[in-house]
Amino acid sequence: MKALEPIHHCIDQGIDALNLPGHPENLYAPLRYFMTLGGKRMRPVFTLLSAEMYGISHQDALPGALAIELFHNFTLIHDDMMDHAPLRRGKVTVHERWNNDIALLSGDVLMIKAYEQLSHQKKGPLDQMLELLNKTAIEVCEGQQLDMDFERRSDVQLDEYRTMIRLKTSVLLGCAVEMGAIIGGAHLGDRNALYAFGEHVGMAFQIQDDILDLYAEAHLFGKQVGGDVISNKKTLLNLLAYQHADQTQKVKLEELSNEKDLAKKVLEVRVIYDQIGAKELCEIEMREHHEKALQALKEVSISEEKKKTLYALSDYLLTREN
Amino acid sequence: MKALEPIHHCIDQGIDALNLPGHPENLYAPLRYFMTLGGKRMRPVFTLLSAEMYGISHQDALPGALAIELFHNFTLIHDDMMDHAPLRRGKVTVHERWNNDIALLSGDVLMIKAYEQLSHQKKGPLDQMLELLNKTAIEVCEGQQLDMDFERRSDVQLDEYRTMIRLKTSVLLGCAVEMGAIIGGAHLGDRNALYAFGEHVGMAFQIQDDILDLYAEAHLFGKQVGGDVISNKKTLLNLLAYQHADQTQKVKLEELSNEKDLAKKVLEVRVIYDQIGAKELCEIEMREHHEKALQALKEVSISEEKKKTLYALSDYLLTREN
Repeated sequence: MKALEPIHHCIDQGIDALNLPGHPENLYAPLRYFMTLGGKRMRPVFTLLSAEMYGISHQDALPGALAIELFHNFTLIHDDMMDHAPLRRGKVTVHERWNNDIALLSGDVLMIKAYEQLSHQKKGPLDQMLELLNKTAIEVCEGQQLDMDFERRSDVQLDEYRTMIRLKTSVLLGCAVEMGAIIGGAHLGDRNALYAFGEHVGMAFQIQDDILDLYAEAHLFGKQVGGDVISNKKTLLNLLAYQHADQTQKVKLEELSNEKDLAKKVLEVRVIYDQIGAKELCEIEMREHHEKALQALKEVSISEEKKKTLYALSDYLLTREN
Repeated sequence: MKALEPIHHCIDQGIDALNLPGHPENLYAPLRYFMTLGGKRMRPVFTLLSAEMYGISHQDALPGALAIELFHNFTLIHDDMMDHAPLRRGKVTVHERWNNDIALLSGDVLMIKAYEQLSHQKKGPLDQMLELLNKTAIEVCEGQQLDMDFERRSDVQLDEYRTMIRLKTSVLLGCAVEMGAIIGGAHLGDRNALYAFGEHVGMAFQIQDDILDLYAEAHLFGKQVGGDVISNKKTLLNLLAYQHADQTQKVKLEELSNEKDLAKKVLEVRVIYDQIGAKELCEIEMREHHEKALQALKEVSISEEKKKTLYALSDYLLTREN
């Protein structure tokens, strides 16, 4: 989104200005590496846009925004370890490029660096910011634990799955938007509404991720189409399909989970999902969250004019094709 | 120390009252387990005693004290993973009893729980407490990284080693004592003096640990006497001995590092250390830190009467025989 270029520039400068020390090299080199891998920087953008509605300059809300981004990156380093992931954003992960001990400890220090940013956030009541980050950080860890638990279970229910993705991904987006409101001195009603906005955008975004994994145009999609199907990953798409499948479809899906021909596996699973209408079921749920997000934003006691960029960003994010 | 019983009781109650959730079980059961393994609770005791000098009740300083203790326990869980340690305080470590993923994530959540306690600390300026914890936490991680780096090096210098143990263990004791001062509303001069007190007590305590490892009476010592010698661990005792050894002694110590008969190894290393006077060199350094600690405490602008328990506790800790 063109309108966000100055904001991205501000965030990139903030990350450059972290000035991570040179020593101990094995602690900080992984962080310098990881923080320059890029990513959408969606969370700090939301914080800055939210604070801007309350008349706070990007620069004045930057530490609060960076706190969220650093926390997010900490979770990625540790999650990649737990997932034994070789790549992140197309580049080698920290535990692969260095080792597990180094990924563990540099992740730890990155989490502390997130809290350090709160210390640098001069506008906004510190107690509220700290409480919000603590609550959210704990929920994110709980979500990650549930995700790991679910990998070992075959009886995961839809609502459990929804709770897991809410904790693992959506609450941090809620936190990012509310952080901006706290920095802006918003009252509790606005804070709650903006949190709900972020949380529902996060849910919709995650559901869209599940859909795109199987239904993206291959030439637009950065990853292998059907990756979740190939790895038999539980997603909303997959759980909804199972819930609505008839006995024959269930048996066929079970068989396909062991299919060795991966192209065939993706193709045939998609055929069954299409018979079930799984994509549409997901899209309904995604649209519901998008609607709730817009509704929550509407309730914020600020002129609609000032909310325009937040509306535009959520529309932009939720109509992406890759 | 008998006089500390009410303080220990208060801390134990605080830990009980953490009320860690039941779910997700794999995230919180390890923490419930680990937090009841005990330990000396030396750090929170120092925080409560320090705050008490400024007229703050134990109860009113408890969250700040627990923040330090929880942070300390988080470092133990992650350090045990990096060290592949099977036991902690005579009990199975978290990564052994559960697994590495669970130790990683429950450690993460314990660090956040430490910050959560700062949110609950109502007396004292939050910005100062957060800044102190952040700075200290980063240093502790740096110390752990240096410790790991040193394991792979044979050329570690004495001053590098001193820096490492200062970061890895002493700064958290400094932080614990200063935290009490911040809670008590102390001015910067007192805060710095109390930090120095804690830091020097921490250094002296760590050096004493190195001495006791080889020189404790076996029947008083909870661990195997000579454990550091057996594992060729770098300690102040070992580095000082090398620095003061003549060529013949150096060659002999090198040979002994590969000795398979462990009783012989411990015995003969001790004979050489005794020739060198390594224990005395360590004791001089330990006493210097103890002296500096007492000097720093003297500078605190509070009546000497009110400092009595802190003096007594440091004397008690630094004259222990196990």
